[in-house]
Amino acid sequence: MKALEEKLQKEAIVLSADILKVGNFLNQTLDIPFIMEMGREIARLYEGEGVTKIVTIEASGIAIATAAAVPMQVPVVFAKKSRAATQVGSMYHAEVKSFTHGNTYEAIIPVDMLSADDRVLIIDDFLAHGAALSGLLSIIRQSGATLVGCAIAIEKGFQGGGDALRAEGVRIDSLARIRAMSPETGIEFYA
Amino acid sequence: MKALEEKLQKEAIVLSADILKVGNFLNQTLDIPFIMEMGREIARLYEGEGVTKIVTIEASGIAIATAAAVPMQVPVVFAKKSRAATQVGSMYHAEVKSFTHGNTYEAIIPVDMLSADDRVLIIDDFLAHGAALSGLLSIIRQSGATLVGCAIAIEKGFQGGGDALRAEGVRIDSLARIRAMSPETGIEFYA
Repeated sequence: MKALEEKLQKEAIVLSADILKVGNFLNQTLDIPFIMEMGREIARLYEGEGVTKIVTIEASGIAIATAAAVPMQVPVVFAKKSRAATQVGSMYHAEVKSFTHGNTYEAIIPVDMLSADDRVLIIDDFLAHGAALSGLLSIIRQSGATLVGCAIAIEKGFQGGGDALRAEGVRIDSLARIRAMSPETGIEFYA
Repeated sequence: MKALEEKLQKEAIVLSADILKVGNFLNQTLDIPFIMEMGREIARLYEGEGVTKIVTIEASGIAIATAAAVPMQVPVVFAKKSRAATQVGSMYHAEVKSFTHGNTYEAIIPVDMLSADDRVLIIDDFLAHGAALSGLLSIIRQSGATLVGCAIAIEKGFQGGGDALRAEGVRIDSLARIRAMSPETGIEFYA
């Protein structure tokens, strides 16, 4: 998505060769018209695929998932990273190692929110090592639902998570795919 | 908002006199058309108030805030509950006690995301004891921004947080306001 690449070149901050900061429009301040445009692009990519549910993970995937759900007219289910007093009953769960937070957490979705009849599109803001995505894929497998594909805003291709999952046959669509980046030279995208 | 009261009567689960479960449409599975309708209602309530930014807190406030931001055409900023590797620099922060999770966390917004020029509408899914809202109000005060008001999906009026803040002069608009509830007798709203 050309508009996202241009926005990243203009507004993202490359903190290091690994860490890209997009808090000013994508994951703390939310540029809503732009996020709605990303949602429409995801809906276009998955038109006719019979998606019945969008699955994401709290917190920064929720806005993009909501944006795609508006034109796709399907519900969003987000995995939680901890269990609240309101969460009772059986849960699908998967352990996820977070590289940006330096911890490990459990991603949780109640079993009554996903079923074998569902055709699921996973949406997230970042794909790097693929840890969060692998956790969500495990949850989809536990539920018996069909995975249609994964739509990602920004893939840091050089961290390998996307290609490892593609090699397993998972459909992954990244709106922007970064080949390399550094504070000195900026961001380079795949052609 | 009559439609929300009706939806709560039909779909919410009263787990106890204190705990209401709305995970099936509002805070884990997201009923997107309904949430967009709540967003339009919030936009209507704050029309002409010159709101420049919506502030919420991760995770379950994000979808409703996004829904209101579409018609209001303003950015959303959400407070995070922990500091990631991408969060550097000065932060506004406030300590919040979570009654549903039984812990205390720090709500954080980078200082460059809110300024004294902003006119802020706070949006959240629940208002009970008012702990999260008080934390956000503290952050707004730290930033020097003007608080226009707080739009809440569901206020559990009997837990007192809303009335305490109203007594301090804070404008609070709750789309549904619960007077009392129990698993046996269901939900009773303020007239």
